[in-house]
Formats: sequence, structure tokens, C-alpha cells
Amino acid sequence: MEAYFDNSATTKPKGEVVDIMLKSLTDYYGNPSSLHKKGVEVEKLVKEARKQLAKSLYAKPEEIIFTSGGTEANNLAILGTIKSKKREGRKIITTKIEHPSVLNVYKTLENEGYEVVYLRIDEYGMISIDELKENLTDDTILVSIMHVNNEVGTIQPIEEIGKILKKLKKRPTFHVDAIQSFGKIKISPQKIGIDLLSVSAHKVHGPKGVGVLYIKKGTKIQPIVFGGSQETGIRSGTENVPGILGFGAAVSDFNNKIEEHIEYIKNFREKFKEKILAQVKDIKVNGHETCHAPHILNISFSGIRGEVLLHYLEQYNIYVSTGSACSSNKKSSQSHVLKSMKLTNEQIEGAIRFSFSYTNKMEEMDYAIEKIKNSVEELRMIIKR
Amino acid sequence: MEAYFDNSATTKPKGEVVDIMLKSLTDYYGNPSSLHKKGVEVEKLVKEARKQLAKSLYAKPEEIIFTSGGTEANNLAILGTIKSKKREGRKIITTKIEHPSVLNVYKTLENEGYEVVYLRIDEYGMISIDELKENLTDDTILVSIMHVNNEVGTIQPIEEIGKILKKLKKRPTFHVDAIQSFGKIKISPQKIGIDLLSVSAHKVHGPKGVGVLYIKKGTKIQPIVFGGSQETGIRSGTENVPGILGFGAAVSDFNNKIEEHIEYIKNFREKFKEKILAQVKDIKVNGHETCHAPHILNISFSGIRGEVLLHYLEQYNIYVSTGSACSSNKKSSQSHVLKSMKLTNEQIEGAIRFSFSYTNKMEEMDYAIEKIKNSVEELRMIIKR
Repeated sequence: MEAYFDNSATTKPKGEVVDIMLKSLTDYYGNPSSLHKKGVEVEKLVKEARKQLAKSLYAKPEEIIFTSGGTEANNLAILGTIKSKKREGRKIITTKIEHPSVLNVYKTLENEGYEVVYLRIDEYGMISIDELKENLTDDTILVSIMHVNNEVGTIQPIEEIGKILKKLKKRPTFHVDAIQSFGKIKISPQKIGIDLLSVSAHKVHGPKGVGVLYIKKGTKIQPIVFGGSQETGIRSGTENVPGILGFGAAVSDFNNKIEEHIEYIKNFREKFKEKILAQVKDIKVNGHETCHAPHILNISFSGIRGEVLLHYLEQYNIYVSTGSACSSNKKSSQSHVLKSMKLTNEQIEGAIRFSFSYTNKMEEMDYAIEKIKNSVEELRMIIKR
Repeated sequence: MEAYFDNSATTKPKGEVVDIMLKSLTDYYGNPSSLHKKGVEVEKLVKEARKQLAKSLYAKPEEIIFTSGGTEANNLAILGTIKSKKREGRKIITTKIEHPSVLNVYKTLENEGYEVVYLRIDEYGMISIDELKENLTDDTILVSIMHVNNEVGTIQPIEEIGKILKKLKKRPTFHVDAIQSFGKIKISPQKIGIDLLSVSAHKVHGPKGVGVLYIKKGTKIQPIVFGGSQETGIRSGTENVPGILGFGAAVSDFNNKIEEHIEYIKNFREKFKEKILAQVKDIKVNGHETCHAPHILNISFSGIRGEVLLHYLEQYNIYVSTGSACSSNKKSSQSHVLKSMKLTNEQIEGAIRFSFSYTNKMEEMDYAIEKIKNSVEELRMIIKR
């Protein structure tokens, strides 16, 4: 038996994704920019994938810009906005618990003289709307808030933020990193009032190496990569056709199946939580009680280092994560998210993230929980000796 | 019969490339940054691909940085150098005939106050070493010269430039866009004295969406995309694993077969040139007589618009290009390369680029030349009427 519960790190590509990618490698290998039919046929397929992405975000095809992944989408959103609003202000509002592909952009911007406000979060991982309001000044050019936190799953109140920003005379650009929520929560950026929204294919059973930045029509943004003017000049470079078509296939049944999938994972997570709380002693669920994503469950195991438990579970083909997998620096450094939530050192060190998908089966859950129970008992015994 | 002679626009992925990509989508789908074995096994495969790329460039694995393609590699080379040499000068030397992914970066840098010298080329597409020397001053921070021009195939004297730069007291960073030469001419950047060299997978029977920037150990360069510190911090973002493994497979037999391949295309191009000159009247071969890439043949057909001939040949499944395919702007605008070579308007408008691969067969050549001969005669008849 295998239990892959690391779906927030990456997911297994769907069959339809693999099929179309294979086809694009063997049959549709033309360059979309070529004038002849080998180019034109591929251009059409890319257009079709763009439509699928647009549909999944209740957006227009021309609002979908393909990037090389979520990281580039976040970078383009932030740096592209900054470049286009040079004369409008130098203040940015974000949170303390963003992904490194957001936080590390702000670090470089601080060195260039930008004022970056990092909103605090409470013990459940939630920002304070009041703190946001206090910080909204006329020179705020960008508000960048992640939708679902990748480590604990807390959902930020982006609808409410959208409403607040709409009322402002000088509205800052509103960017949402939706990489963890896409496919697990329905999002209509247009309805909420989001200008820029980042998503990634490999978190929704698509391939690695491709993402999308949704750019609301009329949003001021400049490219950060220059060349042959692909993607309406916002993102130059020969299109990653296999990746783009794979992404299209990954989201093609979103509109039909997303509710069913969400229902399934929600139920899966609740059952998992119930069972693990009933069977494993001295554990604590981290994150928000109600405002949480349906697929992420972060648990601190008292007295055990998360990394040790992770490797212990590997022998049973159970795959989990300690916090985020999105840093290639594999040396253990304390989670900035759990720290911001003011967890104790022991709770931080003992944290494991389970992240589910609709592809996980109930028997995987039962198998995993039994192995986790035994592993935790064994590890605690070893430590006691 | 089909004759795909647009291999400078893109190539058909090799069987081995498709196989490993398929495997990475179905079996090796872990995130290389994950701590568990599903991540570690993928990390190992990426490491292996990096070794293959290093070998193909006679470089060290740690000098290979994977990007999302040639465009990003060129952007990273230029913008990353500029950022790291802010206090050392503001002068850059390049040529008039670079690819848009280089030229359009310089356009934005000129707006930021950088002085960019665009070296002229002669009627064969060759720069003048004297003009380069005259322009090399102490505040020159970057020399960026493409190896093989993508439209006419002229090879620039990068070895000589390398030697000249080596002698300088204050040596500027030397960047070479080798996207068109990689796999068709052996290159050892270390031997030549190149600091940064860009290559792309989909020009060498690898997949679209992945490239490499070779960065000589010790070269000053800063990232242009920020995040989880993948690729030693120079290029963050979850690795495009299928793409990277595909690129590895594409170059894995470079060292064994490259000479054989070069010999084959060289011979193919020579034969093609001989035959077309013998059979089709009033045509002119553009580019350099001897210093040309083995795979590119640019020909002006007098009295015919290249675009018309291109579409005429489509009906016979013959695929060629008018100049570069690397601009998504499909409206016909005159080639900046042929203009710089001071061709007449008629010659520019009548130009077709044939670009070959070792996968092209001799019977494709014979088939194509017959069809081209007939098509040209028919089109000229139509125009005469």
C-alpha cells in the first residue's frame, strides 16, 4: 500500500494530462509562432488550453498569461506591478506568512527602498482586517495576500479585502497567490475584485513547469522577461506547449467536477482528523478551526521531530511533509508560518503537513493512520529510553 | 511525403526524450524539494540530467542552471549581470542582429540609462573585430554576441573575441547566445573564455519550456526571479522536471554522435544548396560563404514574396520559414537581420530560411526541391500575368 499525502508539494499528473502532453511531443511539435500549418495547429491547441484556464477562473481567455510556474507568476505579479507604478507610490502590504516566491521578492524590493508592511497573523494563521485597514494609505500601490496558506491551510478573507479595496478612492492593485487554493476552492477573481491571481499546474494534477497569472483586463503591469512578444508581450519565450496543453487538460473538467472533488477531500480530511485525534495521543491540529482549505491538515506531534517521523513513515510508503516543500534548501529551518502563529518550539519542530487530493482512497487513510499511530508510539518509546 | 525544414524554429522531440518525460509524469512525479524518497529519487534524476548538460558543454554540473527556455536564459544572463555590476559601468556591447530575446532586453536597458553599442554587420552577416575593439572601454561591463545567427546562419568569431577580452585589464562579462549553434557546432565555453552561454532544449530535439544558462564558476550574476532558492538561488521555482529530464535525454548522446550529426547536416545543406542553385533560377544564397552553421540555408527568391512561397509549399507538407519564428507577432515585418546586411527590399521580401536536422532524409530533399522548383515557376507565372 502507498499513501501519498503530500499533494500540496506536488500532485501526480492525471491520465488526460499525460495523454495530451505525449501527443504534443510526438505529433504537435510545431512552434506556435511558425506561419505554416505545423505552427498554426499548435497555436490552436494553446488557444484551447487558454480557454480552459479562463473557464476555470471565470475569466476571459485574454486575461490568462502562461508562465513557467507559480513562482514566476508571483514574481511577474509583484515586479510587473512595481515597474508600472513607479510614480504612484512605494508602499506594499502583504502578510508574514506568504510563500518564499512572494516574501523573497519583497526582500529585494526593501533593499530598493520600498516600504513593505507584513501583516501579522493570529494563532490560527489569520490576518486582521483592522491591521490591513490601518495600513492602507494613498501611496499603497499593491496589496498581495495569499488565499490559502501552504503550510497550515488557513484561508484569508480575500472577499472582504476585495470589498474594502473597492471602496478606496485610489485603489491599489490586488494580487492573490491562489496556488494552494486553486482547484480546492472556487474562485472568481473578477467577482472578488482581484487584479492579479497566481496559479500553478502541478498542484492540480497538471505538469511541473507551467503556471498562470490571471491579469484582469486593464490592469497596469509590465513584463519582467523580454523577447519575441509571446503572451501579448507580457511573457516572451517560445511557449511551453506540452506544459500548457497539460495544464489545460488538468483543469478541463474543473467546472463539472470541482464541487464533487471538494466534497470528497473535505470529507476525507474531516475523517482523517477525527481518526488521528482518536487514535494518536498528544497531538495538536494547527490552523483555523473553520476557515481552512479542504485538503491541508497540519498536526504537531508532541515529543517527536517532524523530520524524524517523516522519514520513519517513508518505510511504509507514506509520504508527508514538514511544512513547505517549496524551498530547495533541505536543511531544517523553522517554519516562518508556525513561528508567526506563536507555536512553541516543540510544536514547530513536531509539525507534519498532510495534504490530500481527491485521488486519495479511504483505505490509504486507514493504512496510514495505523502506521502513524504505531510509528509515533515507537518513536516516543525510543526517545524515553 | 513530408519535409520539415524548419528545425531552427523548433525540432521534433527524440524518442528517448518522450520516454523519459512520460516516465517523469507517471512514475517520478515527486517534488525534488520534498524530503521523502519520492522527492529524493526525482532530485537524483535532475542531477543526472544536469551532468548530461554539463558534459555537452564541457562544463561542471554546478555551472548549469536550468531555466524555462532560451529567452529566460538570455534575460537572466543580461539582467543578472547588469544587477550585479551596478557600480562598475553602464556600457554594453552587442550586435545589430541578435535575437529579440536579447535586443528587447537592451531596449529596456537603454531606457534606464545604459549605453548599448550595436555592432554593425557586413553583407555576409559578420561583425567587425575592429569595431568591437574600438568600443571596448573600461566601463564596458558586458559583451553579448550571438554565436550563430538564427536567420542566416553566419557564425561570429567568438573564439577571437574571447582572446581579445582575456587580454583586457578589466575584462567585461562575455555572454554568448548559443541557442542556434548548440548541437551543431562543438562549444567549450571554458576554453573560449565565455562566462555566460544560453542554450535551449527544443532546438536540439528536446522539449519546449526548458533551457540552460551556463554560468562559469565565479561569474558575478544575480537572480531575476526569487523564491524557494532552487538552482542554487539563481533560478527559483519548482523544477520543470519533465522538461529537464527531456533536455538531459536530448543531449545524452551528444558526445558520441555530435560529429556524425554535424557531418550529416553539413553534407545535407551542401547538396541542397547545389541542387536548388542548379534547378531554380534567379535565387541568391544569403549569409557567409564559409563561416556558416551547418544547418541553416537562407535563400532569396527573386520576384516572389517569401510568405507566399511558404504557404504555397504547405500544400505539399513542406515546412520552411521566412526569417525567424521567434516572434509571435505574425504580421510580416521586415527582417532586422537581412536589413542590416543591406539586402535589397526584393531580396528581403523574397527570403526563405531552410533549417535542417540530422533527422531529415535525402528523399525529403529531392521531393522538396522538385516541389520548390515547380512552385517558384508557377508563382512567377501568376505574377507575370
